[in-house]
This record gives sequence, structure tokens and C-alpha cells, in this order.
Amino acid sequence: MNPKHATTDHPVLDVIAQRYSPYAYEPRGVEPAKLLSCLEAARWAASSYNEQPWRFIVARREDAKEFARMVDCLLEANQAWAKQAGVLMLTVTSRTFSRNGKPNRVCEHDVGLAVGNLCAQATALGLAVHQMAGINLTIARQTYGIPEGFDPVTAIAVGYAADPATADPALAQRDRTPRTRLPLAEIVFAGNWGKSVVL
Amino acid sequence: MNPKHATTDHPVLDVIAQRYSPYAYEPRGVEPAKLLSCLEAARWAASSYNEQPWRFIVARREDAKEFARMVDCLLEANQAWAKQAGVLMLTVTSRTFSRNGKPNRVCEHDVGLAVGNLCAQATALGLAVHQMAGINLTIARQTYGIPEGFDPVTAIAVGYAADPATADPALAQRDRTPRTRLPLAEIVFAGNWGKSVVL
Repeated sequence: MNPKHATTDHPVLDVIAQRYSPYAYEPRGVEPAKLLSCLEAARWAASSYNEQPWRFIVARREDAKEFARMVDCLLEANQAWAKQAGVLMLTVTSRTFSRNGKPNRVCEHDVGLAVGNLCAQATALGLAVHQMAGINLTIARQTYGIPEGFDPVTAIAVGYAADPATADPALAQRDRTPRTRLPLAEIVFAGNWGKSVVL
Repeated sequence: MNPKHATTDHPVLDVIAQRYSPYAYEPRGVEPAKLLSCLEAARWAASSYNEQPWRFIVARREDAKEFARMVDCLLEANQAWAKQAGVLMLTVTSRTFSRNGKPNRVCEHDVGLAVGNLCAQATALGLAVHQMAGINLTIARQTYGIPEGFDPVTAIAVGYAADPATADPALAQRDRTPRTRLPLAEIVFAGNWGKSVVL
């Protein structure tokens, strides 16, 4: 079994157990139909007042010039591996509700919901997704003319995971290390903060 | 077909197309094994530096006293329907990285990723999830002793969707109305802000 397949304490969907964030990508494109399904999945997420605060800016490696522009929006440590992926995206959030202009407290959270869908869909299609908080927010805004009221949130690499041996050795090791998580007892409480739920 | 089943422009997973946020819930509990799978799914989401900023506070309707405490954390408009659900949860985020104490810019986004997993798992198990931004943040913090450095984000109702006829008529209508979303052309750009991607 892939060492990245989660060893779960309770059964979960394959698309959740199998998902991981690779550093090694095959340097090839993603089929448009697959990419569209990933974005469509994101589109149908829930959001507060159905605001759908999420926006995506997409660059495909087939378009070398556009792809390079997006690589330049990443921090250097991410550029090193992400430039191999088939698709790079920026996620952007709308800060306010379109219905009344008031601040949307959960706008970033709701972008996360959309990207959660995207990850599940990508995994089901044999694609791998690696998200990055490490982006240059100023360069991203300037490069794409992101207007006031919207803010970049993350970058996302989507593509085909490769044999870790093809990655930089330090990164390859990460691709070989099993995924770990805090136990449920440390993240799920009942009654009061810190009191583990008993189910 | 359930009118809430998404009419998608591109194929997506059933757990994404079928998911919706009901107002009508059957007033019965959720089996612990199913609830554990939902939380386990959340646990395996990606997060920046694997910080796992998400915390969940859970109240089951079988424990009437605890359930009532959580109902009281919701805004009144949400209390009206959410008190019928089998489980209520609060999501909470850690604001800082445990490794260095620095602010985690994407902490709320990453809670969204975890809840995205939870939604997919719940849908696969025949459960429905309705998330709420409409909570009383102060009461939530006081009720559960949420410490400094952590903030409540959303509430989540989990349970079995009921016939809309069992809900308040104004809410029942929402349960009968098809889900709608912005077209991909309005949320996915390439090259520059507002320029629809062509795939």
C-alpha cells in the first residue's frame, strides 16, 4: 500500500484516506475534462448565504508563459517542486457579501470548503493536489490585478504524483513518510474545552 | 430525483452533487460509528505545516442538557430548525502555529478543508450537514471555555434530512428549491482577474 494511504481509526472514504500532498509530480498536463470536474466540484460547496466567495485563477503548464507567471507568485521553496505540476491555481476570496457589502467573517473558511471538494474530486480522478500557503500575496495581487475587496488565500498544485525518486532527495523523503494526525481525543471535545468526547 | 441534487455542468462525485444543507431534520440521533467516521474524515484533511488547527465541540441530542447548551450558542433563526438535528457541533480554530507561536494566516481556511471532508463523509453515510455562520461567538466562548488563541468559526448540524413538509413552511420552501451556483466562467479566471478560463 502507498505509505501515504492514511491508517485511519474509523472508516473513511477512499478519496479521503488516499489523498496526500506530493512533492514529486510528473511534468505533464492535466486533461481539461478532469480539471473542469475538479473546479465544478469546488463550485458546488456550501457557503454562508450561498455567497460563493471563492475565485480561482488557473495556469496550465501547456501555456508556458502563463505558467511561469504563476510560479513567480509562489515562495521559492514552493517554486522548486510546484513548477513540475500540471496545473497551478491561486485561490482568492471575496471579503464582503455581495448582497449588502458587509464583511463575510467566514469567507476564507468557505474557500476551504470549496477546495475540500476539489481535493476529493481530484483524488477520485487519479490526480494529486498540494496546497500552499507560501505565496507572495503582493506579487499575486499585482500579477493578476486582484481588486480591492478580494484577497489571495492559497496556491494549489494539481497533477500526477510521480515516484518520489524523481524529486529533490530532501523532498522525496517527505513523500515516503506516512501521514500523521492528532488523535480524535485531542481535537474533538464535548461539554467543555479539552474534555475529549466519548462516543 | 431530489430537487437538491445538483445539475452539474461537468461530472462530479455523488457525495458532492447530492450534498445540500437541509432545514428539515428528523429529530433522532446519529449512530456513534457514523459520527466517528465523519470526524475521522475531518481529521485527515490537509493543513498548512500539518498544524491541524481544527477543533470540534460536539453535542448529541441524546444528551438533552448538553444539546440545549449548544442550541443556545446559535442565533435564534438557526435555533428554530437546528434543534431538530441529531448532532450539533462547533468548529474552532487555533490562531497560531504550535511550532513557533506565529499567526496562521490560513487557519480558518484549513478548518474549511476539514469540514469539507466531514461533509463528504456524512453524505456518503446518508447523513445531511447544514453549516451555520450564525452563532453567538461570545456565548460559545463562555459556554465551553474556549481559550485565548482559539476562536469559534461555525456551527454544524448533522443528522437525517426529513421531508420538507415537517419544517416551518418558509424553511420547507428552501428545502424544495433547487441549488444554484455562479457559472464557472464567473469564478475561474486565467491570465488576469475577470478573464474567464478557456479549457
